[in-house]
Amino acid sequence: MGTDFQPTRESTPPPNVSYQQSVLGLAPNVHPLKSHKNPFPFILRAAAVYPDKLAIAHPDVKHPAFYTYAVWAQRIQNMAYALIQAGIRPGDRVAVITPNWSHTFWNIVDPNLSSLIATSRISLRILIFLRLFVMTQAELGDPYESFLSAGRVFSAEKGWAGLDVEPDENAGAVLCYTSGTTGRPKGVLTTLRGSYLAAIGNVVEGQISRESTYLWILPMFHAAGWTYPWANVFACATQITMRSVDYPLIWKHFLDSGVTHYCGAPTVQIGIVNDPAARPLPRTISAVIAGAAPTAHLISQLEQKGIKPVHVYGLTETYGPFTRCYDQPHWKTLTLEQRAKLMARQGQSFATAQDARVVYPPQDENDEELRDVPKDGRTVGEVLMRGNIVMKEYFRDPEATRKAFQGRHFHSGDLAVWHPDGVIQVVDRSKDLIISGGEVNNYPCELSSHPHVLEVSVVARSHPKWGERPMAFVVLRPEHAAKWKDNHGGFATELIRHARTLLPGFACPEWVQMVDELPVSQMHNIHISKTSTGKILKTNLRKVVAKL
Amino acid sequence: MGTDFQPTRESTPPPNVSYQQSVLGLAPNVHPLKSHKNPFPFILRAAAVYPDKLAIAHPDVKHPAFYTYAVWAQRIQNMAYALIQAGIRPGDRVAVITPNWSHTFWNIVDPNLSSLIATSRISLRILIFLRLFVMTQAELGDPYESFLSAGRVFSAEKGWAGLDVEPDENAGAVLCYTSGTTGRPKGVLTTLRGSYLAAIGNVVEGQISRESTYLWILPMFHAAGWTYPWANVFACATQITMRSVDYPLIWKHFLDSGVTHYCGAPTVQIGIVNDPAARPLPRTISAVIAGAAPTAHLISQLEQKGIKPVHVYGLTETYGPFTRCYDQPHWKTLTLEQRAKLMARQGQSFATAQDARVVYPPQDENDEELRDVPKDGRTVGEVLMRGNIVMKEYFRDPEATRKAFQGRHFHSGDLAVWHPDGVIQVVDRSKDLIISGGEVNNYPCELSSHPHVLEVSVVARSHPKWGERPMAFVVLRPEHAAKWKDNHGGFATELIRHARTLLPGFACPEWVQMVDELPVSQMHNIHISKTSTGKILKTNLRKVVAKL
Repeated sequence: MGTDFQPTRESTPPPNVSYQQSVLGLAPNVHPLKSHKNPFPFILRAAAVYPDKLAIAHPDVKHPAFYTYAVWAQRIQNMAYALIQAGIRPGDRVAVITPNWSHTFWNIVDPNLSSLIATSRISLRILIFLRLFVMTQAELGDPYESFLSAGRVFSAEKGWAGLDVEPDENAGAVLCYTSGTTGRPKGVLTTLRGSYLAAIGNVVEGQISRESTYLWILPMFHAAGWTYPWANVFACATQITMRSVDYPLIWKHFLDSGVTHYCGAPTVQIGIVNDPAARPLPRTISAVIAGAAPTAHLISQLEQKGIKPVHVYGLTETYGPFTRCYDQPHWKTLTLEQRAKLMARQGQSFATAQDARVVYPPQDENDEELRDVPKDGRTVGEVLMRGNIVMKEYFRDPEATRKAFQGRHFHSGDLAVWHPDGVIQVVDRSKDLIISGGEVNNYPCELSSHPHVLEVSVVARSHPKWGERPMAFVVLRPEHAAKWKDNHGGFATELIRHARTLLPGFACPEWVQMVDELPVSQMHNIHISKTSTGKILKTNLRKVVAKL
Repeated sequence: MGTDFQPTRESTPPPNVSYQQSVLGLAPNVHPLKSHKNPFPFILRAAAVYPDKLAIAHPDVKHPAFYTYAVWAQRIQNMAYALIQAGIRPGDRVAVITPNWSHTFWNIVDPNLSSLIATSRISLRILIFLRLFVMTQAELGDPYESFLSAGRVFSAEKGWAGLDVEPDENAGAVLCYTSGTTGRPKGVLTTLRGSYLAAIGNVVEGQISRESTYLWILPMFHAAGWTYPWANVFACATQITMRSVDYPLIWKHFLDSGVTHYCGAPTVQIGIVNDPAARPLPRTISAVIAGAAPTAHLISQLEQKGIKPVHVYGLTETYGPFTRCYDQPHWKTLTLEQRAKLMARQGQSFATAQDARVVYPPQDENDEELRDVPKDGRTVGEVLMRGNIVMKEYFRDPEATRKAFQGRHFHSGDLAVWHPDGVIQVVDRSKDLIISGGEVNNYPCELSSHPHVLEVSVVARSHPKWGERPMAFVVLRPEHAAKWKDNHGGFATELIRHARTLLPGFACPEWVQMVDELPVSQMHNIHISKTSTGKILKTNLRKVVAKL
């Protein structure tokens, strides 16, 4: 890769480049923990140590781009000066409207997406704090390149020393919008300190190193890409970006580009292992999975290809992953089913996280006392988190912030049990919880163990006797779809029978509906692409149910 | 290992153990960065995630000890309560006088070393802040075990929740005494924040993971073991300790105990590769080298055994390693000599460090301006550092502190050149620098490339014409010692001739003296063992020279 790369003249650092910043006023034994923002030490160190290493590649487009760390750092510096020239000042927010890599123009919208601005309810310069490093462009002569080049001229070669350091590590960093699977979007404001430590957490947990190549399948706008944009730079790894999720292209990079790491929701993982190009890999790739628990079948399929699944759990409010399901040495002796059951659990706190716990719901909105549920694997409570990789606040929403931090812990809204070994297992989003006869009964994992099932989602449907009962929406595997095409009722009976062998009666679905695909959340910051985050949009399923 | 381990009753955590701490008063999105001190999150998380994993082993003694993370954490908790019971309060300092592992009694002196107390100029409770986690003991019924057991009783099973968190991450952590190679010892006070980030830096740089086994060859008292005691716990690795540096034992563990990492000065590395038990290893071991640059010969010997040398540089004032000589991908194509020359350089800042730079000396003691030397690989200046892994202060020595932080950077006292690729190379300790005709000329690395030389150290000797000229003290390799036994003059001529092929004339030694061994610094905190830190004590050589 990368032989045809010709950076613009302004993308080349000067021969005597210095990566030193002005630090006047800071105590000599402290520097603010910052992974990004103008200027950010991760990229400066990477450029100082590995100036000629391939930092980021966007190969699969008409004008491929390949930037070394030195060139990338220079482009980021140009961008910083360009923004200053354009009148952007500390505290301003700059919108980023772009796929993982893009033909962008300032400020900062991909031309192919510019039609969205008119329809977006979110005005420009409010969306996201500047994520400089994803702002890159290979095509010469376009408005974005002109913008960067003007920044270089405006800098008058003052370089990094001419850019101020943000001294407050608790200052706001990125503003990401989260919809969850329900409710209206909220702006999650994170900090520089939190981003620094969450990124390092991901490096350590993922064992990302300068030998690593990370493939961007996860959208960068999804909780700021779980801090992986900075994690990879901290580790001096190489990043490959794609404009959209394209399974044949993913396999091309798996096989030809030395990919070692990627992240994705289970729906994306299912797409990967079921692509016709899928085959056993010559070396192990680490796949970080979040958003839902991987099933035994998916784990088996991934492992057969040489992909090692790592199950993590978190929210936009926790910079992405906050807990990890740590596999234990003795798991090696277990059967796949036993192992999958353990791996489906959400786990324990990350290396740089602090507490994750499961507590009984508060008595009322003034109840600040936290009462842990017993670690019995049965009692359901809410997952609470605290520590450096919890967000600062919901942007301009003090009431939602107050509510989210009741008892000085972040309330995830996710319901879970706590196992005797300290491992947390989410039973479902509390908002999606189905109560049938007073019991928690939403177990899509168990349903998807049926060999004909590709994907499944379960929502509540009102029931005359039980209040609510589960209804399953199922996508069949292509090779089995024909068999049930004209016999939906037969498959429903078959699936409920299968469920009864695995689950108590109250947990089995009352109704089963076959669908061609499950509706997927497309709205995080802005509609960008189908399956962009891979989170199943249960609100849409509920609308279907409401009409039944 | 570890089959005969029976922890005391009080070392076993309760069945419902909780690793949660009281965090009242802390903001929900911040927790203090702390790697240790009472209580410290690294060990709590390791015990929560891997309770039954072997955390630390001290196998080669009459009563071997093997502690799992759960047991170790419990013992540390017992220790905390025992100290509270004994009247120790925040701000008190507790002495630690012990080898890397020991039969200790409170407070806290190894019985075999207790005679030192009478002769030590340093009174108890002043030496070192409590390093709880190294306080361990296998022998039942001894005073240390009784002390811990009493702590458990005193705790009344209040557990971790009964111990307060230190909310200030910039509070003092460890007090380590440094002598350098000259001068009187100074107490280096580090912080919790710095220890946390330095430890993570070592994990990332060393790629230490839960699969790793770290062998303690480096003394833990040497700059707090370069933060490796915490780094290994952060990574959930296994640590093996030895009472002293014992080369056959080191090879036993290399071959039989799955060792993956260790640290040591070049003198220790030389001892390792020249031990009769040395042989090619079945898997690569990572050896972190600091204190002096490894020679081409040493690098070659290590690599032949399957030991991968990593050259780092730092001081007690920087928690140990601050820079690393990052090998570049294209080095693979170089000859050993070319590579060794590049690897001998001290490198660039660590992942969690900030700036390391080389500046001209200040004009006077009020000169706060920093003037970088040109990156030409020739101009000599002083190495300055700043950032989170620089010490807080010299303990009770504001004048030394002020002087060390002139210009708001830490002054290492080490002289170096700055290469065009941004890499720093120390030419020698400024205090040891020999000026001959106005030139820097101390190049022991070049001298030790002679095939008959095992070790060499160079000091200044007064010279009628040049002021000072270099005198080399040389230890010959055993296999070549006989040849030169009665012909010291012949070897001196031979070595000077060899030096002239590699060095400019001013840099060649004027005199060569053969010795059986080089004097090694034994005084860091206290005299403990010969070759305890492996730093050659040039003051002793100067005394020899002064009498000539």
